[in-house]
Formats: sequence, C-alpha cells, structure tokens
Amino acid sequence: MNDTIAAIATAHGVASISIIRLSGPQSLDIARKIAPKATFTPRYAQLCDLFDAEGVLIDRGIVLRFQAPHSYTGEEIVEFQVHGGLVVAEQILESARRHGARLAEPGEFSKRAFLNGKIDLSEAEAIAKMIEAKSADAARILARQIKGELGRFVEESREKLLRALAHSEVMIDYAEEDIPEDLIRGLEAQLVELKDSLERIVQSSRRRRGLIEGFRVAIVGKPNVGKSSLLNAMLSYERAIVSDVAGTTRDTIEEQIRIGSHIVRIIDTAGIRQTEDRVERIGVERSLASLEEAEVVIALFDASRPWEREDERILERIEALRDKELIVALNKTDLPRRLEEPRLEKFHPLEISARRDFSHLMEELQRRLDALGQDEELMLASERQIEAVEECARQIREAVAPLKQGELEFFSYHIQEAVQAISRITRPYESEQILDRMFGEFCLGK
Amino acid sequence: MNDTIAAIATAHGVASISIIRLSGPQSLDIARKIAPKATFTPRYAQLCDLFDAEGVLIDRGIVLRFQAPHSYTGEEIVEFQVHGGLVVAEQILESARRHGARLAEPGEFSKRAFLNGKIDLSEAEAIAKMIEAKSADAARILARQIKGELGRFVEESREKLLRALAHSEVMIDYAEEDIPEDLIRGLEAQLVELKDSLERIVQSSRRRRGLIEGFRVAIVGKPNVGKSSLLNAMLSYERAIVSDVAGTTRDTIEEQIRIGSHIVRIIDTAGIRQTEDRVERIGVERSLASLEEAEVVIALFDASRPWEREDERILERIEALRDKELIVALNKTDLPRRLEEPRLEKFHPLEISARRDFSHLMEELQRRLDALGQDEELMLASERQIEAVEECARQIREAVAPLKQGELEFFSYHIQEAVQAISRITRPYESEQILDRMFGEFCLGK
Repeated sequence: MNDTIAAIATAHGVASISIIRLSGPQSLDIARKIAPKATFTPRYAQLCDLFDAEGVLIDRGIVLRFQAPHSYTGEEIVEFQVHGGLVVAEQILESARRHGARLAEPGEFSKRAFLNGKIDLSEAEAIAKMIEAKSADAARILARQIKGELGRFVEESREKLLRALAHSEVMIDYAEEDIPEDLIRGLEAQLVELKDSLERIVQSSRRRRGLIEGFRVAIVGKPNVGKSSLLNAMLSYERAIVSDVAGTTRDTIEEQIRIGSHIVRIIDTAGIRQTEDRVERIGVERSLASLEEAEVVIALFDASRPWEREDERILERIEALRDKELIVALNKTDLPRRLEEPRLEKFHPLEISARRDFSHLMEELQRRLDALGQDEELMLASERQIEAVEECARQIREAVAPLKQGELEFFSYHIQEAVQAISRITRPYESEQILDRMFGEFCLGK
Repeated sequence: MNDTIAAIATAHGVASISIIRLSGPQSLDIARKIAPKATFTPRYAQLCDLFDAEGVLIDRGIVLRFQAPHSYTGEEIVEFQVHGGLVVAEQILESARRHGARLAEPGEFSKRAFLNGKIDLSEAEAIAKMIEAKSADAARILARQIKGELGRFVEESREKLLRALAHSEVMIDYAEEDIPEDLIRGLEAQLVELKDSLERIVQSSRRRRGLIEGFRVAIVGKPNVGKSSLLNAMLSYERAIVSDVAGTTRDTIEEQIRIGSHIVRIIDTAGIRQTEDRVERIGVERSLASLEEAEVVIALFDASRPWEREDERILERIEALRDKELIVALNKTDLPRRLEEPRLEKFHPLEISARRDFSHLMEELQRRLDALGQDEELMLASERQIEAVEECARQIREAVAPLKQGELEFFSYHIQEAVQAISRITRPYESEQILDRMFGEFCLGK
C-alpha cells in the first residue's frame, strides 16, 4: 500500500463523462503534474487543463481531491472528470502511469478501504454486488448493507453469543446438579431463537440470490412436454435484453429476459445438451440437472397425455425442493384432456398452452419475483457470508445439547466457534489469499 | 429552458461509478428531495444518502452542485456520483423524474450551454467529437478547440476581412482611376493569403477526418488482384477490435482494426456487393466506388499478370485523387513477375504478398496515419465547419477580381458574404431546426 494506484472508474463506452481515480501517498504529486493549475482544495471541484507526460494538453476537466483519511480508501484520492468516450480517459490514465502511478487491480480500491478500516468485509461485498445488481430491489437491500446494516446484525449476534458465554461462566461456579433449571432453559431459548433467525436469513438469502445475480429459472418436465416451446414463447413475451451493455456477457446455455423489474436467466436445457457427449443420455435426467442451479423452477406436465413414469420422477424431485420457488403448470390444455393426477392439486397447477396462452404463468412468475424483492429479511449477499452464518447456526445447535446436559466446557467451545464463524462476515480473520480472491472479483476501478 | 433536465452522463455498464446530472431552474429543489441531508455548498463534494420518490434509500453517493451561472450549461447543475452498474443510476434518474425533472434529449446539456453563451458552436462540436474520437491525436486537437482555438481563428479571420472592408471604404473616396496600385495590390495579397490558408485548413481537415471518425481505408484493384486476401490478412495482423464497447456498432460492410493508436475501418467491397442487386455489375466498378468514402486508398496491382485495361482505369482514378492518402502496392510478388508498367514508378509502389509478407505495407500505413495525427494545421471537426470555411474562401476568391477592376461595391458584397460564412462556425445565425439537428447528434447526458 505504499504505491499509488490508478484506474478508470466509469464504464467503457461513448458517454458524456469518464472518471479516472488515483489513490495512494503519491496521488497529489502525480495529480499536480497532470493538472498544474489545480489548487487541490479538499472536496472542491475545479475545472482545469489536464496534460499528458509530455506536457501536451489532453482535455479540460474537473479535478476533485479527497484528503486522507476522509476518502473512500482512507488514502489521498484525486479524481479527474473528463470528456467521455474511448480516448481521453485512457490518456489521463497513461499520464498518471507515466508520472508514477500503477494500474489498479480489480477491487484494489475497496481492498485498501477495507485494510484501512474504512469499510468492513460485508460492506465491501455489498459494494461489489451493488455494481452487479440485476434488480432495483437488490440495490435497495444492498444500499442498506453499504451503510452497515449487516455489520450491525453481526455485532448484535456476537453480543448475544458472548452474553451466553458469560452466563455459562457464572454457571460453572455452581455444582453441576445445582444449576437452576430456568437459567438453563432461558439460555437455551435465547440461543434457539438466534439460531432460528440465522437459519431463516440463510434460507431467505438463498431464495433471493437472484435479486443480485439475476434469477435463474429452470423449466423441467419429460421430453416433448413443451419446454422448448415455452422457452421460446417466454423469450418473445417481453423483448429479450439486448447484450450491448459493457460487462454483460451472454451465456451460451442461458437466455435472459426482463420480467417486470427483474432480469431473469432461463436455463436452456437444449444448451446443456450440446455440452454433453452422449446424446442418448438425455430426457428427464438432463432436465432435472438444471434444478440445482435455479432459484425458480417451472415444472411442466402434459395435460394431453396420461401420467407416466417420467412424470413420477419429476414429481418426486419437486416435492423434495427446498429454498426454491416452484410453479407447476399443465401444458397443452388446448388439446383434449387426458391427465388426471390428484397429487398435483396441492401445487395449485396453472393450466397453460405454451403455443396459445401462458400470460398467467408470466404473471405468476412476476408475482413470485416481486414477493422475493419485498422480503424484508436481512439478506446475505455472498456465498461466503451464507457459509459463515450457516456455520454459526450449526455451532449453536451443537452447543445446545451439552448445555442441557450441563457439559459447560463443550457448550463454551461451540459458542466460541459460533462467535468466530459470525465474525468472519465483517472481520479480517481471513488469510491474505482469501482477501485477494475476494477483492479480485470486484470490477476494475472499485 | 424553463424546465429541468436529467440524464445519466456515464457509459452504461458494469463499473465502479455512474454519474447522474440535473440542469435547470428546479435542479436544487429536486436534488434536495433526493438528498435531503446535503448542504449543496457550490462545488463541494459531499457523501449523502440518496432516496427514491417513496423515500426508500437507493444508495449512498457523492452530491456535487455547480451554481448558476458557473456551470457547464450556465444553469443550476447538480451531479450525483453513485455506485456503477445497471440499476442504481437508473433509479436516481427515475427519482429525479418523479420529482419533476424531464429526461434530457441527446445533446441538450450542450445546447443549453450554447444558448446561455457558455460555449460557441465550434466548442460544442469539439465536445461532441471528443467523445467519439477514435485516436489520441484527435483528442489532443479537439482539447485545444474546446478551449476556443477555432473560435479565436474565426475571430482573427473576421477581423482581417473587416479590415479589408474598411480599406475599401477608404478607396471609395478616390476616383476610380486614382486608387493607388500598391494599395490594391497590398489588399489583394492579404486576402489571397487568407484564402490560401483557409483552403489549406479545409484540405488538411478532410485528410484528417479519420482521426475523429476512424480512418476509412479502401482497397481497390481489378478482380482477383487479392483484395480479399489482403483484407483478411490485415484483420488478423493485429487483433480486430472487439465490439463489446457500449455505443460502438459494427458496420456490416466495414471491418475495424487497430493500427498503432488509430482505429481504422477497412471498407470491405465484398460487403458492398451484397447490397447490390445485379451481381454482374461488379469488378472494378464496385472497387472504385469505395474510393469516395475513404481517406486512405490502397491501390493493388497484380505483379504476376500483365497490365490490363482494368488496371488502366484504376490508374486513371488514383492519378486524379485529391485530399486522400494513397499507397500503391504490387501484390503476388511471390509469383514470377510479369507486370511492367513505368507509370506506376512515381507512386513508389511497395512489393508485397498478401499471403506471405505485407508487414511493410502495414508499417507504411501506420506512418501515414501518424503523420496525419502530427499535422499541426488547425482542424475543422465537422462537415458544417468545412462548408463554412469553403464558402468563405470562395467568397474571397470572388471578391479579388472586382477589386482589381476597381468594382468596389462587388468587392464589398463578397467580403461581407465571406464574413457571414466564417461567422457561422461559432455564431447562432443558424435556425432552431439546424441547431436541433446538430445537438441531436450528441450522446445522451452531454
């Protein structure tokens, strides 16, 4: 962190404004060479001529200094707002480089902010996810996390656990048989309550993962039930998102559509087929494989054909689904009805025809997605956070049994493990390597 | 201009920062609703919570106010720097809209800057071109124009013309036969000098147009001379530019490559063929058609075949080229030589083999492009400016003959026309319609 980093912080493209950002001890020296007439009054936006390393005028732009430690990274930061497009920002960046700055790695600004104690890990992750967010709901949730909502929850949880530890210390002074029953029962109730809330958060976060990354929808069903017809119909239902947006790449086995304010990726099992060698191993098998990756499952049954063994396998799997939204639909209802299966009733199946009318399916899908967006449960934004909370809940569960048996040392061990687990969300118990990997997933200039 | 406009000013894409910009009389009122805690001290960057129209937190970002008239548009401007990506900026924009702002038209900020007298038309055009610039050289040239270089040249030219007018007024007091010869000759010399410099600027601007828009290179030659082989070889010589940049669209009949710091579009006559109906009307005809659109011409002759009538037509055309860079190359020099044509010698033809070695052709191409970038002549950035200067030069030419014949009224008329013509570069003699068209070509948010 002794060097000074530089990056273009805005998206690459034809636009009105681009921003180039410097952070580090030499920021001000380097910026003085680029903008010799700037006063660099902290936080004061000033219009100045900007020069390359040979002293040739590059552009006239706004110079903005954030004085250490009152900046995003906690270091001396200088920002240049210049004319957008493909050329000017790159020249300013090159000028900064020639004057001694180093090109920043992805996420390096945020990593410095974390290492300088300006943000905790949960805030850093919320910032990274905010940039990738695929829905307004996600942005709303993440905006709260950037303000430290998750960090405060971690603190509260830690305090509850530490209070439980303190209680158990008191109990150690009692002889085993003398520990008051109601003390133990009170402690147990508090811990179970915490564990339940942690589990609810994990479950709800898993279900809502798609708010950030874009919900993945899997269409499952036996061969010829109409999966491809439905997929194609959905793609033309609302205009497919055009992929002329920098930074979005079109996955070959997924199709993206916009449903209301959500960007949804429909897993195309036809695409999965192409990546497999043995074309024969297809059918229900392949269809079910897509279940694992999805947050939303549309299970299709053929209303025009009798119940078959392959339908049975689909039914078994959807009955076992956890943490996923499930919509069951009977397709081909425009043909004579030949399906009777009372076990489907509990799923309140929608009757559709992928060829003629499936608008109520789209409406139901949007209702489900909207409901997930409205869920006010605290949301964990990354798999890393989910794992930490899961581990914390698991350790609390492990602690409760010894508590009831008065084995206070075991109890104390598991509660301490639980504290460690939840603390990982915000604090640097991570190794340098893990930090590098985490921040490496950020976009450049953040 | 009584309403307040809003737009996202940064490129659309996954990135660290996006900027939303408000301009107009209600900017401050609207911004106060989005960022209720901001102090809006002029030019002072402040980190604030930002809210949507329902009062829900959208993001935490930097608020920056530019107080009228000390802003780009001359109006009250408020900028919001928020987390990048696809969602947050759109929500801030929506919040501004809900609070009474109107979505800006492309170029509307610059149009307001012009109408409020903050920039002249030449500066506005330089800003628009800067954003589209395809080379560092263009950006350098345009940066000077944004600072008013072209405006100053227009002023100087006007003054020279007005001085000539004043002189002619003095001469009117003389009887026709008494006008001193040397006075007329002095005036004529000054005007011819100005006219020559205007013509040089037009010529040089035409040749360098590609610095901004990307140079267009046409490969001409008779059928089977190796045009397609050369095109394909050039495309793989340096990696073709990937078109994942927002705002760049790939023209179907052009291929883009990067040569040094230049983005070059090679006009693919194969593409032109596809747009024509009669496949028979091809050959030299089609190849020559691409000449018109290009700033750089590569004329290919086949070293392995004798001179043919079709070569003759190519030769005639390239001998007549004006304002274009011409490179003549003999292709297929890896085969036995059968071409002898002394008239080609004056073009210093390069001997190449599109299949084996053509690197010296690429080097020559880059040398030519670099030389154009280094040309320090004043550059006109738009066809509108070129037409104005051409018209000015033409009127001066028309004025010189009556001057020599002592027809001072005609002289005076043409000089006044010349003044009008050159003034059009910077001043609003244009109709509202022309202004709308001009600013409509700007990108959104500028």
